[in-house]
Amino acid sequence: MEPAFTLEARDPSSRARAGTVRTLHGSFHTPAFMPVGTRASVKAVDARDLRELGAGIVLSNTFHLMLRPGAELISSLGGLHRFMGWDGPILTDSGGFQVYSLAGLRKISEEGLEFRSPYDGTRFAFGPERAVEVQTLLGSDIMMCLDECTPYPATREEAESSMTLTLGWAERSKAAWDPATGLMLFGIAQGGFHRDLRERSAAELAGLDLPGYAAGGLALGEPREVMLDAAEASLGVLPESKPRYLMGLGTPADILDGIRLGADMFDCVMPTRNARNGQLFTRTGRMNIRNSRYRDDPQPPDTGCGCLCCRNYSRAYLRHLQAQNEPLFPRLATIHNLAFYQDLVRGARKSLLAGEFMCYYKQFLDAYRGGTADWPARPPAAVSSRQGISALTILAPRPEPRGHRPAALRPGTAWPQGVVFAGG
Amino acid sequence: MEPAFTLEARDPSSRARAGTVRTLHGSFHTPAFMPVGTRASVKAVDARDLRELGAGIVLSNTFHLMLRPGAELISSLGGLHRFMGWDGPILTDSGGFQVYSLAGLRKISEEGLEFRSPYDGTRFAFGPERAVEVQTLLGSDIMMCLDECTPYPATREEAESSMTLTLGWAERSKAAWDPATGLMLFGIAQGGFHRDLRERSAAELAGLDLPGYAAGGLALGEPREVMLDAAEASLGVLPESKPRYLMGLGTPADILDGIRLGADMFDCVMPTRNARNGQLFTRTGRMNIRNSRYRDDPQPPDTGCGCLCCRNYSRAYLRHLQAQNEPLFPRLATIHNLAFYQDLVRGARKSLLAGEFMCYYKQFLDAYRGGTADWPARPPAAVSSRQGISALTILAPRPEPRGHRPAALRPGTAWPQGVVFAGG
Repeated sequence: MEPAFTLEARDPSSRARAGTVRTLHGSFHTPAFMPVGTRASVKAVDARDLRELGAGIVLSNTFHLMLRPGAELISSLGGLHRFMGWDGPILTDSGGFQVYSLAGLRKISEEGLEFRSPYDGTRFAFGPERAVEVQTLLGSDIMMCLDECTPYPATREEAESSMTLTLGWAERSKAAWDPATGLMLFGIAQGGFHRDLRERSAAELAGLDLPGYAAGGLALGEPREVMLDAAEASLGVLPESKPRYLMGLGTPADILDGIRLGADMFDCVMPTRNARNGQLFTRTGRMNIRNSRYRDDPQPPDTGCGCLCCRNYSRAYLRHLQAQNEPLFPRLATIHNLAFYQDLVRGARKSLLAGEFMCYYKQFLDAYRGGTADWPARPPAAVSSRQGISALTILAPRPEPRGHRPAALRPGTAWPQGVVFAGG
Repeated sequence: MEPAFTLEARDPSSRARAGTVRTLHGSFHTPAFMPVGTRASVKAVDARDLRELGAGIVLSNTFHLMLRPGAELISSLGGLHRFMGWDGPILTDSGGFQVYSLAGLRKISEEGLEFRSPYDGTRFAFGPERAVEVQTLLGSDIMMCLDECTPYPATREEAESSMTLTLGWAERSKAAWDPATGLMLFGIAQGGFHRDLRERSAAELAGLDLPGYAAGGLALGEPREVMLDAAEASLGVLPESKPRYLMGLGTPADILDGIRLGADMFDCVMPTRNARNGQLFTRTGRMNIRNSRYRDDPQPPDTGCGCLCCRNYSRAYLRHLQAQNEPLFPRLATIHNLAFYQDLVRGARKSLLAGEFMCYYKQFLDAYRGGTADWPARPPAAVSSRQGISALTILAPRPEPRGHRPAALRPGTAWPQGVVFAGG
């Protein structure tokens, strides 16, 4: 049998790499960005759109699908792929973050979670075994172990006990998983924002020899430097030979930094959610299409983009659709933003295969941060996809530092000569 | 120069016919259904969707576009076709109905209309000349003369004076129109619900020798029999050699009756609006996808349909999307409903070319009215597209009679032997 993950290129001056992950529903290339389809639908686009955008894999959510319409129902209809009309790879988040977000409505014990449904108050018990069972019913190509998302801030003791709980759950998840199904199981490293706990969590998880691993518990409101430092600690220990998924990140800069630190897979609600709010990503920064400067602008949203939206429509038209609350707007804006994110990771992969990743990294960020788009007028929030699909609450947004030198770039890190960070 | 309208087939036992209309942006076949794109967008679908659905022509609205984003702006961006990314024929409604719907906010005189913008209260004067000017700026392949929509109910005197006003405006519209532009101008016959006024309006309008004609002022809340009777009076007098547009109708049965009475073109918000409310048209009647019976139904919405929605998705999935308020739902439901309407008129055309229209008419309605769909639980409203795109108000809906014998089918009308109306 072919290995599930093939490493195809390594950047000589960072931990970045390119590879291919094989699943029951075909392969996808890494670095990969997974559009978020929480409730078996990437908001405002259909499965054909996703194929045209070149999405290699789509993310959905165990917790939400378990409650509505129900995993047994989806299974009886032939599984999640048939249900949502998507025949490519699917990864399902475990539901740990969603239960975490229920706050007063849940109880966490070593056994598992007890919570009341945010839909109708029904009481549920949910443990690592049931999380695997539900994801098996869905037919997820990549299942995630149930984890406890360590809150931010948390004391060292809290972070350690949470990490221990998650490790125990990962062991139970592995025991509940039947590798013969062909469905893969990924473990989630936690550890809060303590480097040694992050490293320990990743190392002990790696001992389970799962098909892949994720770093979770990030983008919870912590400063960007703290986030990247924690990500580096996890990614630095997770094995080279397995795909590494950095959960819930992020801005284009976050994704490039995640790639630089060795992550292969990403997901975030930012491109889809921001699209619905009128915020478009372009190669020269973000634009708020509601801005009156676009009233008579005949250009496509992003002159460097070849998506359905940019091929056919002007900024003036999109602004009109947004102003008139036309339901076509979310569709076109989502298509463009997802195309931007797919182009971002495709460009990174291409540069890795060509041995030019850090050059791509620098050029992309120079153009993006130094560009003429209107974004600075309204600083965006860094939003984790897990935040985006919380069960009840949306965590407070925080402004994204612009032109900031990544904290994880500490003295001693090897950089190609001449690389200067925009605004750094 | 080729004639703008070619008649290709006539039904021997009714006034139904098939033809082709040539415009600056290509030809379309009749009978034709025009999806309604009031604000330069058919709600929830894009221009490629419309092409794939086989829509030959799209309708937009002069009044709304004049106010937002403005006709001069659209003109400066290259016209309405480029603005909305649709390179096929476009017809624009004149705006008469929208001003009519402003009620207390407008004043109608022989000169024209004065009204306050429902967007921001700005005062506007709008007459037949400006209506032609605005539509020329938009670049509408088919412009509609400004008309006064006679209210329902109206006295004979009101209907007559309104009709006279509309005729005078049609003359002024013709004088303001430059045929050298290649844009066509259609007149609108009114006359309320008085047969003789309907006939006089149509006859006098025909004297202007315009490229096409419409019957307006229908579907304002009058009983279906009254509506079909008025439509028959107008259509019976409008010339054979020109395309005839029956404005704002209607249900599938309304459209088949309109074709039977000699109409070539239709528009209605029903397929698009009902889609957004969860109501799907099928060959066996309408279904309310919210119904719990579809919870685990693996069938496509309409087993006889080949649209993007029916090819890829189940009733269970659509019900889930609707229940979760997913923005993909309006898109998929709209695509299906528009496909249903396009199939309806395409089928009518095919049957006309084969000389079997009344057979098609009967078979379609038998299946549609006698089918197993769940619709009767919730009687639908007959909604005119003009109602749908009123400036301020939505007129009260009324239930659609089911299995009703068309009133316009009076003794003396020639019918193929053996035709029995379902439920009639």
